[in-house]
Amino acid sequence: MNGYPKGICMGVMALKAGIVGATGYGGAELIRILNHHPQFELASLYSSSRQGESINNQYPHLTGCASHVLEEIDAYRMAQELDVIFLAVPSGVASQMAPELAGAGCTVIDLSGDFRLNNPSDYEKWYKKSPPSSEWSKKAVYSIPELCKEKLAKDSLLISNPGCYPTATLLGLAPLASNRLVREESVIVDAKSGVSGAGQTVALGNIFCECNENLKIYKVNQHQHIPEIEQMLKAWGYMSPITFSTHLVPMSRGIMATIYLTLNEHLDEDEVLQLYTEFYEDSSFIRVRQRGEFPSTKEVTGSNFCDIGVTVDTRTKRVTIVSVIDNLMKGAAGQAVQNANLLFGMEETAGLAMTPFYP
Amino acid sequence: MNGYPKGICMGVMALKAGIVGATGYGGAELIRILNHHPQFELASLYSSSRQGESINNQYPHLTGCASHVLEEIDAYRMAQELDVIFLAVPSGVASQMAPELAGAGCTVIDLSGDFRLNNPSDYEKWYKKSPPSSEWSKKAVYSIPELCKEKLAKDSLLISNPGCYPTATLLGLAPLASNRLVREESVIVDAKSGVSGAGQTVALGNIFCECNENLKIYKVNQHQHIPEIEQMLKAWGYMSPITFSTHLVPMSRGIMATIYLTLNEHLDEDEVLQLYTEFYEDSSFIRVRQRGEFPSTKEVTGSNFCDIGVTVDTRTKRVTIVSVIDNLMKGAAGQAVQNANLLFGMEETAGLAMTPFYP
Amino acid sequence: MNGYPKGICMGVMALKAGIVGATGYGGAELIRILNHHPQFELASLYSSSRQGESINNQYPHLTGCASHVLEEIDAYRMAQELDVIFLAVPSGVASQMAPELAGAGCTVIDLSGDFRLNNPSDYEKWYKKSPPSSEWSKKAVYSIPELCKEKLAKDSLLISNPGCYPTATLLGLAPLASNRLVREESVIVDAKSGVSGAGQTVALGNIFCECNENLKIYKVNQHQHIPEIEQMLKAWGYMSPITFSTHLVPMSRGIMATIYLTLNEHLDEDEVLQLYTEFYEDSSFIRVRQRGEFPSTKEVTGSNFCDIGVTVDTRTKRVTIVSVIDNLMKGAAGQAVQNANLLFGMEETAGLAMTPFYP
Amino acid sequence: MNGYPKGICMGVMALKAGIVGATGYGGAELIRILNHHPQFELASLYSSSRQGESINNQYPHLTGCASHVLEEIDAYRMAQELDVIFLAVPSGVASQMAPELAGAGCTVIDLSGDFRLNNPSDYEKWYKKSPPSSEWSKKAVYSIPELCKEKLAKDSLLISNPGCYPTATLLGLAPLASNRLVREESVIVDAKSGVSGAGQTVALGNIFCECNENLKIYKVNQHQHIPEIEQMLKAWGYMSPITFSTHLVPMSRGIMATIYLTLNEHLDEDEVLQLYTEFYEDSSFIRVRQRGEFPSTKEVTGSNFCDIGVTVDTRTKRVTIVSVIDNLMKGAAGQAVQNANLLFGMEETAGLAMTPFYP
Repeated sequence: MNGYPKGICMGVMALKAGIVGATGYGGAELIRILNHHPQFELASLYSSSRQGESINNQYPHLTGCASHVLEEIDAYRMAQELDVIFLAVPSGVASQMAPELAGAGCTVIDLSGDFRLNNPSDYEKWYKKSPPSSEWSKKAVYSIPELCKEKLAKDSLLISNPGCYPTATLLGLAPLASNRLVREESVIVDAKSGVSGAGQTVALGNIFCECNENLKIYKVNQHQHIPEIEQMLKAWGYMSPITFSTHLVPMSRGIMATIYLTLNEHLDEDEVLQLYTEFYEDSSFIRVRQRGEFPSTKEVTGSNFCDIGVTVDTRTKRVTIVSVIDNLMKGAAGQAVQNANLLFGMEETAGLAMTPFYP
Repeated sequence: MNGYPKGICMGVMALKAGIVGATGYGGAELIRILNHHPQFELASLYSSSRQGESINNQYPHLTGCASHVLEEIDAYRMAQELDVIFLAVPSGVASQMAPELAGAGCTVIDLSGDFRLNNPSDYEKWYKKSPPSSEWSKKAVYSIPELCKEKLAKDSLLISNPGCYPTATLLGLAPLASNRLVREESVIVDAKSGVSGAGQTVALGNIFCECNENLKIYKVNQHQHIPEIEQMLKAWGYMSPITFSTHLVPMSRGIMATIYLTLNEHLDEDEVLQLYTEFYEDSSFIRVRQRGEFPSTKEVTGSNFCDIGVTVDTRTKRVTIVSVIDNLMKGAAGQAVQNANLLFGMEETAGLAMTPFYP
Repeated sequence: MNGYPKGICMGVMALKAGIVGATGYGGAELIRILNHHPQFELASLYSSSRQGESINNQYPHLTGCASHVLEEIDAYRMAQELDVIFLAVPSGVASQMAPELAGAGCTVIDLSGDFRLNNPSDYEKWYKKSPPSSEWSKKAVYSIPELCKEKLAKDSLLISNPGCYPTATLLGLAPLASNRLVREESVIVDAKSGVSGAGQTVALGNIFCECNENLKIYKVNQHQHIPEIEQMLKAWGYMSPITFSTHLVPMSRGIMATIYLTLNEHLDEDEVLQLYTEFYEDSSFIRVRQRGEFPSTKEVTGSNFCDIGVTVDTRTKRVTIVSVIDNLMKGAAGQAVQNANLLFGMEETAGLAMTPFYP
Repeated sequence: MNGYPKGICMGVMALKAGIVGATGYGGAELIRILNHHPQFELASLYSSSRQGESINNQYPHLTGCASHVLEEIDAYRMAQELDVIFLAVPSGVASQMAPELAGAGCTVIDLSGDFRLNNPSDYEKWYKKSPPSSEWSKKAVYSIPELCKEKLAKDSLLISNPGCYPTATLLGLAPLASNRLVREESVIVDAKSGVSGAGQTVALGNIFCECNENLKIYKVNQHQHIPEIEQMLKAWGYMSPITFSTHLVPMSRGIMATIYLTLNEHLDEDEVLQLYTEFYEDSSFIRVRQRGEFPSTKEVTGSNFCDIGVTVDTRTKRVTIVSVIDNLMKGAAGQAVQNANLLFGMEETAGLAMTPFYP
């Protein structure tokens, strides 16, 4: 009994949603969204470590908004009671849980990296963990909705929600790359993230005094989101490895990908801007900036928007693309709900039409 | 033709709302709320300096959410077209505009300090400006809804929305003070605010490098919110002047009032907590914390909540109350909409049931 | 063989200093100071957990400035080789180490709270740990140099360096309290600290996303620095318990104590200011602000200054005192070196005359 | 009468230094350095707008450290009284002042961009201002000491101190570029700066709430530091224009340049690291990180260090270089004093051997 058929016929009746890993920041953001979603009902929260506690112990800010008691994970019962499960657990854990839950008939939206890579040896190499079951890896549908919408039109039980960096990067690259306009070996992505990208991880590198008034580069050439980006680029015909760097910025939320590339053929700035504008004409969450304007991260904070600015340097002929998202929204929980909306035949923007939070 | 009678009979038909001073942070927050309000429609935005421009020039984050062109202020037309006007202009400006707008028949919610003080000489002394018209000063209804709800039950054209510090402070003090349990001369309020409290003011003291990694005290014993707090305390029978300090904290949003006082009679911590819990039993936006727990500002960010923790020190017998709000929400735009909701006979929480934004 | 006699006769010859607990923020700040001290030589660093590693593993910022290998703690050897040991380890650990080190003849400056309270039962109650040896507790000299200078004039082997909050608070209170001008039961201290006050502790409450854009109150009426402040106040004849609150501010460094009190006798603002100015006339590190001016924390960052502003409210007659320090400098490492300077007969400001770091 | 001959023969006698534009952040940092410099004496501060005021009005943090009264600019008198003038005024102003001061015989270290570009038309194009006098443009010596030391060995009256971004970028590129190992058209620099890079400018984009929790890109392909970098690269034989982006990071201090390039010939990571290590062997302020380690900005805060990490990606063969400085130190005031030290025949590190400020 999964939610999909119910989704199709449901009218105003709510679909029941559960969150596994509700105590992390991704989980908290899912709660914030689902609390106000017109068609999903936030039915249950699950935690492997804190079951029996109220979510308000962990998150007093949710008092009066969501006061669920954290439940034990029980695939059989969850499949009986829920229409969709958002899996907001770490990579390596999701690969264990997802097959059992989806196997029991639940629709699972997995926010981890476990089912994003088609090639198990890529997973092993970049995640340094055992790859997930190849059966479920094949069944999983990877979806950035703006780029993969058609793939969701099947009866899928397992959606692999994209990574935060790949979302910002691929949305920034798509109009050029999917049109095979990018010269091989030319793509460099300089990406920057707020600290919530590391979750609620309690580690030295994460404490306030180490991050505040500090800008750090990390995992140079080694970030596990690299193969995820390259996999999509290859599907578009761009075959070279990319250069990709990640930086930790002293702010809680926000990702900016500054993308550099050279074109295969001559296009001037107006032509490139027109390409972007047309490419995203029907994408509610993508806002392409006007000539000469570039987005900053705060302009999308709290929303599911991805804002994109693009320019062509007349001196170097190189294209610079600036793509920003809120890493917890379009980069995680927001996109997960967007995928669920589409999967269940709802409006893509249902529950996601938040005005950005400023300042 | 004002909105009040329409409000009473309207059903689902939207009431038209306008914002004067839409380009400030208070204005931006009103836009964020009204964008998602079930019964108010954000009809028009006004600016005295930037008319003819799109609000998106000032606030690109609103692109696709609100793209109004800023209009010229024209009281007659506004009264024709709008049901309610939110006045988000500086003190000294509101006193000029409100009488004309309300006189033309518009319902005005004034977010400035101009109509908060009953006594014109208090206004002159603390604001160092000419007091507003005494006619409209008398007509204005000052309303922290949790404490003054009954006052809104009349056909008021001018609501004076409380200050951010007085809101946090008076909600923290009310259960004890309105029950005459506070010893005279004992109240000390140590208040702290994020920098958005100063609005979008471009001034040296406001620039990033002067505020970041810095904690500043300002207007010691001289803040214009002091007489506003004392006026309410006097209405409750507490007659002494208070000691009140304000500090600027390196964060964008949030106010914490740490309040110290001595009781008139012996009450232990459980009795005080029970008093608070019962006092706010029917107040959707007030969350009284459990024994031993105190709120932090982030726990109410982006919401209209006021969270309160209280303790009685067994050593000193002194009561410490911690009251936090989001200064732009419960301290300004949120409370303004709450007042409008009540005035027009809507649910008090209409458009305001946001889950706090965390982290 | 301790450093004291050497100190007296030394001329330009350097005294050898060691730091135990060099890997914490207090230790790092001691390294920063001693690196540039004209008379102390930073001879050795000690760590109980990371011995054998270079300090540069923990702190790459020290590369080329201090590259000591962390050594094992060995009281006998340390007493042979060092003139003074700065003990920058947690409370509860210092009480174990200090007696052995001082017993072996080393001069020990203890930055922990272990030897600050005269009364062992106070220690047990507030620190919730077993009290230190009563022999060494009695021998330990507690010293805020501006207030206790004469106490250092003896051959002491164990200096108890004051807490950060007590330093800011007592320096703010001293001119009035030591002159018995403070009315009993009137003192309230609302204190605020940057996050480095919690050290390099890796704990959930300490991670960036929990502290950033957040203001938290903690340990209300329960902070272990309360009895330390009261002990000094009692020595000055102020016998009541104080009300004392601590807040965590989203910045790395800085403490502000906002102090409220009522006078025993009438003094106007000029008289109070004069009292402060004269009281601290010979104190190089205390800067009393002019009438109407108050310090912010950034104005002392990186220095050993304590800046004090004071005002008398004509309405309430209450005195408000604002006292700011850098918690790692005057609140810890700076004051420790100041104590060592005095103990060894050097200039009080030796190695400590840093210009504050701004912005 | 300029300081140069005095510098040569002076022994311990101090040279007199003046700062024009002392009220900006660059000026304040010069004061912090010169206050503790063993051979320069901070003789006079100058301001065109605030003469007659104490510097303590602007900067209370300097009270007791530097309390000069701001003087009027008078080239003749300054040349009489001073050995060296640090010109910390905006571009466009320095070009007016420097010729008069240097013409009167003062040694001038100009921190502005006015004398950095050899080609006046470049200046006009990128600075959008009239170029400085070509006579003085030619006399001016541009100096990043690690790269241009030999140029200072002449009797120069006007030193053009490099820009913050060019300093980080060129120090990062030098070992490869000056050895002609960089493939044409391959250099991309993604640079990030703290907000103090904009000085004490009071502008909307600079206020706390606009910068905090925000990452902004600005002046894409248009930053006036681009021709400064390219000019040096051309001197090394790299002739193509570069791609260069600048981002504003929510922190006060720090610059990181993340530099991407392709090599002309095959070098593996160890060879590149060895090249860097040897290139900077004698440079006290350059710290090349070990294999696999990259600097963060906080690790150089408050110091004159430039820390560099470098890696060669085995997949893309591309080199990634990470270069960090404190923009107010090595990026401005620190390097200016370093240049002055060399010019006057002092130790290069005199007054600049600060341990970084952490955390």
